Amino acid sequence: MKTLPLSLVDVISNIKRCEARHATQARHRLDSLTKPIGSLGRLETLAVQFFSIYPGNIPLPLRRGVYVFAADHGVVAEGVSAYPPEVTAQMVRNFLTGGAAINVLARLHEAELTVIDVGVDAEFTGTPGLECAKVRRGSRNMRREPALSHDEVTAAIEVGIRMAAKASEKGEHLVAVGEMGIGNTTSASAITCLVTRLPPGEVTGRGTGLDMAGKDRKLNIIRRSLQLHFEAAAAIPEPLEILRCVGGLEIAAMTGFILAAAAKRMAIVCDGFISTAAAAIAFQMAPEVQEYLFAGHCSDEPGHRHLLKHIGLTPILNLGMRLGEGTGAVLAMPVIESAVRLFTEMATFSAAGVSKANE
Amino acid sequence: MKTLPLSLVDVISNIKRCEARHATQARHRLDSLTKPIGSLGRLETLAVQFFSIYPGNIPLPLRRGVYVFAADHGVVAEGVSAYPPEVTAQMVRNFLTGGAAINVLARLHEAELTVIDVGVDAEFTGTPGLECAKVRRGSRNMRREPALSHDEVTAAIEVGIRMAAKASEKGEHLVAVGEMGIGNTTSASAITCLVTRLPPGEVTGRGTGLDMAGKDRKLNIIRRSLQLHFEAAAAIPEPLEILRCVGGLEIAAMTGFILAAAAKRMAIVCDGFISTAAAAIAFQMAPEVQEYLFAGHCSDEPGHRHLLKHIGLTPILNLGMRLGEGTGAVLAMPVIESAVRLFTEMATFSAAGVSKANE
Repeated sequence: MKTLPLSLVDVISNIKRCEARHATQARHRLDSLTKPIGSLGRLETLAVQFFSIYPGNIPLPLRRGVYVFAADHGVVAEGVSAYPPEVTAQMVRNFLTGGAAINVLARLHEAELTVIDVGVDAEFTGTPGLECAKVRRGSRNMRREPALSHDEVTAAIEVGIRMAAKASEKGEHLVAVGEMGIGNTTSASAITCLVTRLPPGEVTGRGTGLDMAGKDRKLNIIRRSLQLHFEAAAAIPEPLEILRCVGGLEIAAMTGFILAAAAKRMAIVCDGFISTAAAAIAFQMAPEVQEYLFAGHCSDEPGHRHLLKHIGLTPILNLGMRLGEGTGAVLAMPVIESAVRLFTEMATFSAAGVSKANE
Repeated sequence: MKTLPLSLVDVISNIKRCEARHATQARHRLDSLTKPIGSLGRLETLAVQFFSIYPGNIPLPLRRGVYVFAADHGVVAEGVSAYPPEVTAQMVRNFLTGGAAINVLARLHEAELTVIDVGVDAEFTGTPGLECAKVRRGSRNMRREPALSHDEVTAAIEVGIRMAAKASEKGEHLVAVGEMGIGNTTSASAITCLVTRLPPGEVTGRGTGLDMAGKDRKLNIIRRSLQLHFEAAAAIPEPLEILRCVGGLEIAAMTGFILAAAAKRMAIVCDGFISTAAAAIAFQMAPEVQEYLFAGHCSDEPGHRHLLKHIGLTPILNLGMRLGEGTGAVLAMPVIESAVRLFTEMATFSAAGVSKANE
């Protein structure tokens, strides 16, 4: 991948595989705790993964952050969304005044929220709390031309890398990625087709609420965009090419964030379809990133479960959510922390004087 | 049901159906919030149910409690558990010193834990924090005789009613029921057969970790117990008869707790297979109780999903847990509170100046 910018090469070279011996050590400890073997189910897997990320030294309480990247998509000109494009900017303002779903969940579950304008098609003035990192006012219409230039893609990735560095400086241990961008399920669907090799019909959904005619229109736009940019592609195209042709600025930024957060050995929670599309691109660049990823939930968008399977992630929650903004990721944080706390705080059979199972 | 004690008749007569207009009102509000219609998935159903329980006046922050009822089971003499019976008392001590899974989760999720000895086969001395309400030292062996007398069943139910009154006095809004009792999946399996009319083979699992031979033995004991007590039963036997013949003291107490908590209009979270068996008995006595019940999770015990379906409950979490103690119920509390907070705290489209979907 000769086209990777130097900052990204550096980040990727710093992503280390977790060591198998730490997983073994974690399983050993789980089996010594006062509970039937395996009875914590998925919580045990989560604890093993977390212990492997923070071997021998799980930091408690877990400092939590959620990073919501916002950008617009030129492809909305094709009528692929149930909502008008100005909703991206309106929702960013809603995030800043605390009225959106992610604000409520971030407050309740004590995740510090950062909202990043990486490409909203509006100018924000007098909006304290917004990270201004606009690369351009929205991507281009991928149905007609590449959504982004190579330089725009790398600039957006670098925004994500900078945000992960901030998370690390703040001492965060558990970070969620989320997004806002009217039209971005169209981009995520195209990405899903390219990385999973599945046809558009299997991965495309109704987004925020298209009717059947709208969904057919969206499907057609995805097909034509893929034809335009990747007609002759025999293998999975290079990740930066995917982002350039059918990506989005918030998706590129999340890709950079995920890679850099993994390089800093943070536990990263993916949210829904869009953030998992970014994770799939990150996974393509550096498969080791998978060991740092948790899937907060499985959304109702049909492409999401295919992406999760592709990366090898099992969702923690299955609540039929399809909201984005990082909501499903933050909602999974108390479950992840529960797993970690059980692992670290439960008594062992010997310490508590409890008899083990009959042999 | 002429055999119901007066206190229970009184409790049941106080369980009121929720009003449909409050559910309608809640759905209306959900659709006015800054999110695509229906995009919060199951969280929306949870919010509607919660608002129906506390119409127009959801108390925040939600005060949470978890009540763990402990008792022994005479049927363990038949070799139906992987653990020796003294583990019930040992785990009660573990609860009191804070080392069990439920202690960790109750601390993390701020649910006040109450441990109730309703029938442990041990004497506790010098154990502050334990609610002593022992009816007898364990039930009898249901394979040979009725597990309990009629008076013992009603005494245990009254323990549960008293605990729900305490929860109400403490101002708790969201209460979980859990249990500890070596051998109690055998009792819960027999109850499940009686209320769902399914054969033992479909509802019986490996409990805390029986091997295949152990599971066969357990299955055989359940079959013989049902034959002994209910051979000629054409319909579902009366709930008190089920509890008397194949129940347990903690199960009877949880039944009383659930009914009384519903009468006090509290939101009640069921845990795993055993507490849901108690909920099924409560449901048989008063079907309205269903409107106050939340299913925290679906456990790995095969009978659990049948019971949930029978009562009409959809589990919030599906994490393959099978620990009991109220752990799955307390783990679902942050999800329930998330639903309630989103419902009460999110901005509306008009207040936030966000455009609605295109018509």
